[in-house]
Amino acid sequence: MDITSILEEYKKGTLSLEAAQAALAEKDSSHTAQTADLGFAHIDLARQERCGFPEVVYCAGKTVEQSVTILTLLMKKYDNIIGTRASKEVYERLLPDFPDVQYDDLARMVYQRKDTTIVNGDRTIAVVTAGTSDIPVSEEAALTAEIMGNKVMRIYDVGVAGIHRLLSRADDIRKANVVIVVAGMEGALASVVGGLVSQPVIAVPTSIGYGANFHGLSALLAMLNSCAAGVSVVNIDNGFGAGRLADILNRMR
Amino acid sequence: MDITSILEEYKKGTLSLEAAQAALAEKDSSHTAQTADLGFAHIDLARQERCGFPEVVYCAGKTVEQSVTILTLLMKKYDNIIGTRASKEVYERLLPDFPDVQYDDLARMVYQRKDTTIVNGDRTIAVVTAGTSDIPVSEEAALTAEIMGNKVMRIYDVGVAGIHRLLSRADDIRKANVVIVVAGMEGALASVVGGLVSQPVIAVPTSIGYGANFHGLSALLAMLNSCAAGVSVVNIDNGFGAGRLADILNRMR
Amino acid sequence: MDITSILEEYKKGTLSLEAAQAALAEKDSSHTAQTADLGFAHIDLARQERCGFPEVVYCAGKTVEQSVTILTLLMKKYDNIIGTRASKEVYERLLPDFPDVQYDDLARMVYQRKDTTIVNGDRTIAVVTAGTSDIPVSEEAALTAEIMGNKVMRIYDVGVAGIHRLLSRADDIRKANVVIVVAGMEGALASVVGGLVSQPVIAVPTSIGYGANFHGLSALLAMLNSCAAGVSVVNIDNGFGAGRLADILNRMR
Amino acid sequence: MDITSILEEYKKGTLSLEAAQAALAEKDSSHTAQTADLGFAHIDLARQERCGFPEVVYCAGKTVEQSVTILTLLMKKYDNIIGTRASKEVYERLLPDFPDVQYDDLARMVYQRKDTTIVNGDRTIAVVTAGTSDIPVSEEAALTAEIMGNKVMRIYDVGVAGIHRLLSRADDIRKANVVIVVAGMEGALASVVGGLVSQPVIAVPTSIGYGANFHGLSALLAMLNSCAAGVSVVNIDNGFGAGRLADILNRMR
Amino acid sequence: MDITSILEEYKKGTLSLEAAQAALAEKDSSHTAQTADLGFAHIDLARQERCGFPEVVYCAGKTVEQSVTILTLLMKKYDNIIGTRASKEVYERLLPDFPDVQYDDLARMVYQRKDTTIVNGDRTIAVVTAGTSDIPVSEEAALTAEIMGNKVMRIYDVGVAGIHRLLSRADDIRKANVVIVVAGMEGALASVVGGLVSQPVIAVPTSIGYGANFHGLSALLAMLNSCAAGVSVVNIDNGFGAGRLADILNRMR
Amino acid sequence: MDITSILEEYKKGTLSLEAAQAALAEKDSSHTAQTADLGFAHIDLARQERCGFPEVVYCAGKTVEQSVTILTLLMKKYDNIIGTRASKEVYERLLPDFPDVQYDDLARMVYQRKDTTIVNGDRTIAVVTAGTSDIPVSEEAALTAEIMGNKVMRIYDVGVAGIHRLLSRADDIRKANVVIVVAGMEGALASVVGGLVSQPVIAVPTSIGYGANFHGLSALLAMLNSCAAGVSVVNIDNGFGAGRLADILNRMR
Amino acid sequence: MDITSILEEYKKGTLSLEAAQAALAEKDSSHTAQTADLGFAHIDLARQERCGFPEVVYCAGKTVEQSVTILTLLMKKYDNIIGTRASKEVYERLLPDFPDVQYDDLARMVYQRKDTTIVNGDRTIAVVTAGTSDIPVSEEAALTAEIMGNKVMRIYDVGVAGIHRLLSRADDIRKANVVIVVAGMEGALASVVGGLVSQPVIAVPTSIGYGANFHGLSALLAMLNSCAAGVSVVNIDNGFGAGRLADILNRMR
Amino acid sequence: MDITSILEEYKKGTLSLEAAQAALAEKDSSHTAQTADLGFAHIDLARQERCGFPEVVYCAGKTVEQSVTILTLLMKKYDNIIGTRASKEVYERLLPDFPDVQYDDLARMVYQRKDTTIVNGDRTIAVVTAGTSDIPVSEEAALTAEIMGNKVMRIYDVGVAGIHRLLSRADDIRKANVVIVVAGMEGALASVVGGLVSQPVIAVPTSIGYGANFHGLSALLAMLNSCAAGVSVVNIDNGFGAGRLADILNRMR
Repeated sequence: MDITSILEEYKKGTLSLEAAQAALAEKDSSHTAQTADLGFAHIDLARQERCGFPEVVYCAGKTVEQSVTILTLLMKKYDNIIGTRASKEVYERLLPDFPDVQYDDLARMVYQRKDTTIVNGDRTIAVVTAGTSDIPVSEEAALTAEIMGNKVMRIYDVGVAGIHRLLSRADDIRKANVVIVVAGMEGALASVVGGLVSQPVIAVPTSIGYGANFHGLSALLAMLNSCAAGVSVVNIDNGFGAGRLADILNRMR
Repeated sequence: MDITSILEEYKKGTLSLEAAQAALAEKDSSHTAQTADLGFAHIDLARQERCGFPEVVYCAGKTVEQSVTILTLLMKKYDNIIGTRASKEVYERLLPDFPDVQYDDLARMVYQRKDTTIVNGDRTIAVVTAGTSDIPVSEEAALTAEIMGNKVMRIYDVGVAGIHRLLSRADDIRKANVVIVVAGMEGALASVVGGLVSQPVIAVPTSIGYGANFHGLSALLAMLNSCAAGVSVVNIDNGFGAGRLADILNRMR
Repeated sequence: MDITSILEEYKKGTLSLEAAQAALAEKDSSHTAQTADLGFAHIDLARQERCGFPEVVYCAGKTVEQSVTILTLLMKKYDNIIGTRASKEVYERLLPDFPDVQYDDLARMVYQRKDTTIVNGDRTIAVVTAGTSDIPVSEEAALTAEIMGNKVMRIYDVGVAGIHRLLSRADDIRKANVVIVVAGMEGALASVVGGLVSQPVIAVPTSIGYGANFHGLSALLAMLNSCAAGVSVVNIDNGFGAGRLADILNRMR
Repeated sequence: MDITSILEEYKKGTLSLEAAQAALAEKDSSHTAQTADLGFAHIDLARQERCGFPEVVYCAGKTVEQSVTILTLLMKKYDNIIGTRASKEVYERLLPDFPDVQYDDLARMVYQRKDTTIVNGDRTIAVVTAGTSDIPVSEEAALTAEIMGNKVMRIYDVGVAGIHRLLSRADDIRKANVVIVVAGMEGALASVVGGLVSQPVIAVPTSIGYGANFHGLSALLAMLNSCAAGVSVVNIDNGFGAGRLADILNRMR
Repeated sequence: MDITSILEEYKKGTLSLEAAQAALAEKDSSHTAQTADLGFAHIDLARQERCGFPEVVYCAGKTVEQSVTILTLLMKKYDNIIGTRASKEVYERLLPDFPDVQYDDLARMVYQRKDTTIVNGDRTIAVVTAGTSDIPVSEEAALTAEIMGNKVMRIYDVGVAGIHRLLSRADDIRKANVVIVVAGMEGALASVVGGLVSQPVIAVPTSIGYGANFHGLSALLAMLNSCAAGVSVVNIDNGFGAGRLADILNRMR
Repeated sequence: MDITSILEEYKKGTLSLEAAQAALAEKDSSHTAQTADLGFAHIDLARQERCGFPEVVYCAGKTVEQSVTILTLLMKKYDNIIGTRASKEVYERLLPDFPDVQYDDLARMVYQRKDTTIVNGDRTIAVVTAGTSDIPVSEEAALTAEIMGNKVMRIYDVGVAGIHRLLSRADDIRKANVVIVVAGMEGALASVVGGLVSQPVIAVPTSIGYGANFHGLSALLAMLNSCAAGVSVVNIDNGFGAGRLADILNRMR
Repeated sequence: MDITSILEEYKKGTLSLEAAQAALAEKDSSHTAQTADLGFAHIDLARQERCGFPEVVYCAGKTVEQSVTILTLLMKKYDNIIGTRASKEVYERLLPDFPDVQYDDLARMVYQRKDTTIVNGDRTIAVVTAGTSDIPVSEEAALTAEIMGNKVMRIYDVGVAGIHRLLSRADDIRKANVVIVVAGMEGALASVVGGLVSQPVIAVPTSIGYGANFHGLSALLAMLNSCAAGVSVVNIDNGFGAGRLADILNRMR
Repeated sequence: MDITSILEEYKKGTLSLEAAQAALAEKDSSHTAQTADLGFAHIDLARQERCGFPEVVYCAGKTVEQSVTILTLLMKKYDNIIGTRASKEVYERLLPDFPDVQYDDLARMVYQRKDTTIVNGDRTIAVVTAGTSDIPVSEEAALTAEIMGNKVMRIYDVGVAGIHRLLSRADDIRKANVVIVVAGMEGALASVVGGLVSQPVIAVPTSIGYGANFHGLSALLAMLNSCAAGVSVVNIDNGFGAGRLADILNRMR
């Protein structure tokens, strides 16, 4: 009901003063996310409507208690829910109440995926990974995208030191709609993939490597300085962020 | 012609040995970009076909002579050509031969834009900028996207210190297909915009700010750590990279 | 007794030579804080008089024994005493002797708060926090301010990725006399709050976030580069410093 | 006029539908700062009302043309206006139209100060400076505070290497309401002053010093790590930010 | 025996060819430290003669076995021996064979001090420490100097936030021949002490402090940038290095 | 068989269509390493042929399960196999199946060395180490080179603080074909050795040292800035990389 | 003449005392490079004999006068001489006296190359460069190697964003004995080349790139973290060091 | 006159009340340096008495006017005066009034040295320098020490890449009382000298070198991490600080 309608209905008496006030106030706050206030957290309960997927819970730095409380609230309301950087204890606390809850050891992700519909048609996300040691981050990305309703193609251990392993998969990668590249050490894979495909490349630096990797700084800087067009970067080890962005790109009209 | 056909035509004699060898060799090199080898540079002459836009010339670190030689070769072959980080001297050297060449002082971009067709339908790119001092980078992004055939909406000087300036433009920004956010100092604009829209946000940190900005490091780190979903980051002051990536996103099916 | 009086009393004989010497020497050292010298520590016993609150004990890097000895001395003398970055063991060692001692697990603060008088009238300190994971630092700030005699309003989990959560609390925040903003990741909350209020904003970066947070560096730099006026910054995770500074601002005439 | 009144007046017919719609829409945007949109800049024209002083123009990174245009608009409307990091050319372009405009070579500040009323009663701001080489930043702070209507006491060249220079001024410093400490090199002055006074100390690191100063990083880190209570920090060389924050503290009730 | 003597004695027949060769070879290698080669270590057995104190063993990074082997060799040969950064296990393994061996928990130093002669006359070394948390490093410095034969005066917990604690000890400090200043956080104590005394000041930054201390970087940079003359710096937490250097300064003629 | 031969043999009928296709396809992929695809890893099974030694497994970041699976596959096929940064658990899981498998505690390397042939003639690799604490990295380098078939000369604990220890071994070092220098702290050994020999020097910085070593950064930067010719650098603590490169240099014609 | 001979000849009287002393002293100093002492510089006049090429002069930080004096001394004595990082003024000052002297504007190298003999047989050095902007550093490397007597193959502008440009040159690169890879931005080229060849790869990071390149840090870290075997790294922009090391590798037996 | 005397003289009437008060007050301030207050600077006029040499003027960051004013005041009062980091213009402005003033182009030092007495007996300071490019910093150190009355021995261009150049001067260096080592690049010279001598070594890192020198950071870190005892470090390029500290060490009893 727009302002005009409210005003006219009020004039006609269809709306009481209170009702008209409420309608206008509601309109005013319609941008405001509906939230559940837990004191230590404001849970956004309108995000699925706004963005296509409910709020995701970043569990690092939260107590197990806090994580479980928030996830319980969300898992009751939604079919598919993700908690990232979660300890196994969070999962074990949720399991009695939510038999569908799952836990991925590598990705340290707790999640409920009751709805496995593919929402983005035939658009596939390729998750391309330099080395086996980067798989935990890759799985965080891949699982995130899958739970959000995307088809994911995993192409693992194709780092640039053996460029033909990558080239032999180039045609597969080109079939994807979006490409996520996960690499530690020198992070060169992002640039090479960026030069091979015309799709957008989301680069995820990982903290894997010998000393001068400096916890992912080397791969991060390399990816930011990529000479290939179409490459953008998310935070070190942030597989979730890459998976979520790929989902957003897949939902673009 | 696939391998089987080549072999069969050769057997039939439709193809001579030389012709079959050439056909197989050509097939082998079909992935190889056709390039013009200038000694100091290999110009990619198949990029428009592969990626939708010709090679862009990064002029920093090249001599004026080198930049002019490369741009001359490209401007003869293509209608729309971009040289980034170019000195005005490059422009002045090109002007006699290319009357359509233009130079943007702020963006330090030399370009030829003979074809102004909008190639990406009604998909608009919003370029949102924190402060007036960030405009040179914003213009590099906006011009890049425009020359590549996109509609661009400029929304300048809406930094977060006056959040209502931004909120009053939120509906405009939401109409875009892709959003580029350009900000220096604390780079907070990327996170706030990322929370307001459901489109992908390309964040460009700039080197604008007081001392502890450390030439863009503060904005870069802030953007990489964005708590908003859908934000990815390109290099400091890399307006071109953002404009190009936005163009790629606009071309996605 | 001023110099003139001492001299005159000495001349009159009211003061012996020794007494006059002592009186002059004492005067000389009157600026010197009265301290209890424990060998490994000089405890300032005049700080409450000088600054309105007794010395606060930073327990990190001290042995449990050292922390307990210092806190025992102070808790005997004063009603309200704070030990920051304290292990639970310090608390357990103090409890038998000080039944009022309390321990806050999140803030890792041990304290005695026997006097709950509000000393700063109706001046409130707002502690505004980006995410649930920042609460330990926020609680260090809030508890510090409360124990020092301030009213504290906690506004938690209103990070900028959902700007309307923050805006819906803007009027509450504006009622405070001083605002503490606690945020990790990109630390953008300080700038946005700084733009919404005309009060001073004390920004506390936290070490919460994915890899390129670099233990709080991203939020620290962002806050130092804030484009909003009135924002100043304390050390990473230094909730105590922020709470103490807010207390000082609240005591200003 | 609140929502109820609008609705009732509309029902009564005192307001037309259009007038009621406008009234409601205006109400909606009342938080929005009134701005003048210059395309390259949104000038905030309600800031004096909101914050007590008009918008300040950061001229670095802006063209001379842009700076002059913005300052012209503001200087016409307000008596006291500040442009920071301005080249002398900006001043020379403004002078013909604004005979009161002044330029400070050291602080690189252009300003108009037609109103010299002291607005904050007898509250003085002390600007304490370690060395002569730090004066440009100190003057940016002092001038900013003065133009905004504060009394400023300058105490220059009292660095800690000769602690008695500082101690001999301690009583003067204690008379101030707020203390700004400006220091490069090791930035130790902030901690020492912080220990001498019970007022809030705003620390400004400067980029003055030999090599391992790293453009102000040494002083910045030292100030952030100050062991004294009541010290908070602004950006390197950001004299303006310190002066503005001191003004805000002086305006606190 | 110099070359001339050797040659002449050889000519005279006092030296056989073999003896003359040996004498010349010995001369050649006289600069070469006599070492015990353990395979994994070359123990310098001439250092006491050359430098006044035997080789000191840095135990970090060595296995317990390696540390014990080296210390055993040295403790047999010399009265006073130091092992730094040693685990308690090293001490416990040495104790059965060396009843005089001692272990300092705070300094993590294992040592044998059978000779307690003061070798440097009345020259005292002052070890001045900012806070109680810096004591482990201070004790490493003080113990090192004591075991090497110096008188040490400990002045602890006199950080700059309470400058009068320090000033009241200034006359004591001035009595020392060399001053070691140990401080974490902002490291300002080195500059203030450097300005109070005319003796050389050896500054030791420690890794104590909140987040932006960055493991001692803040204090290190502050000390390197000290505006006071006569201050030089050793590595972060390197109490041993400071104690050793103070010993060297005390041995200067 | 070259393209011409394939074509002619096909024409003649010596090759069937399928065989010719296969031959051409094989030719196409002949650069492609033959790999075993384990899903989480692509094992390169042609590396020994290409590079003289099979793929080496970097176990850090891999699960024990993954490491064991990969090593099992390789140890079955090849005599000599290396796993770096391996936990002892990997070794214990392999031992039942591979009785020749060995584990080096210091170097944290698991390996099988069934073939002890020296493949590089009399070319020796000198591994020169600054201190005993650097031995784990040195052993990673030395073992790597030995398992690959090189003679290794270990020269340990000859750091520059006692330059004669090094000089007395200079002639030995000069006999090597390649020199690996392993040093932490200030990393000066690389420059001194580089000035003493005319062979190539591979410098390996280690993370050994007091605080301002910053996990190897000091040695890394020192080695990169070496004023001696012929010095190049590998990653911090990367003994494996140095050993492998030395092997490559030894295999040069 | 060895020690025995000297002694015996002295005994026989064939050598006078003075002659024997001189012979022994000379022997003692035979390791000592013969140097020309210019006060401000010690020129090594025995380096060609020791290392195969005379001393190279690093002109940065030297006055023109100093550079010219040193180069004059060397150019008189040797045919081939190199001055790196030289201003054109150095060249112009040398030209009147040394008609063969040349200057390379890009590499900023002044040199005399009177002897163009190829000393290393058919061993070629490949200099592979990512982009045209990296050519100044590449030329420093290539010229250095050529003047020292090597054959150099230049392969320029084959960065990884267009991997087929590189692959099409792979066979050429494999013909080289040593490969120098010069790249800025993300420095990925080193890893890709390292994976393609079995020769040693010397990686030279350059300072070319957008902001987060941080003056070559991104490429430096990437190259140090290379996942390819056989890659080692020299300093940023240090083309000379790479050329010299390649020459050393080419001289290996 | 001590307190007792003042009191007794006052009692006797030898001192009036006023005189006694003044005498006591003067005593109180006797620690306070007598200073000349120029507004922008407090010149310490008692430093020669306290520390043996007048205040030294750091001219960087000061205007020419400020530098000249301060130096004029000091040069009138003292024979020997130093201004560091001075432009030649400062010298030219002083010359008309001070015919003895001198300027050193390399060290950028302006100074007056009317008194050339050697004050420290036969104690010599050795200034040992790695390369010719480090001479400007070395000269700042050497000149400072000389003007303060010390004998200086310059030993230049003896960097570690040719260790014998250094060893051949070792005996000379050992004759000094204090050794200053000036080195850029990898800064290894400090460690090697530290191992050769038993005197204290003051290490001065310089900003000379290729890219990864990072403006002196590499040499700074190397020197801080020196494995040799007796080495301490001053700021990058801070020749003055080293010269002054050497003077202080030479004045020790």
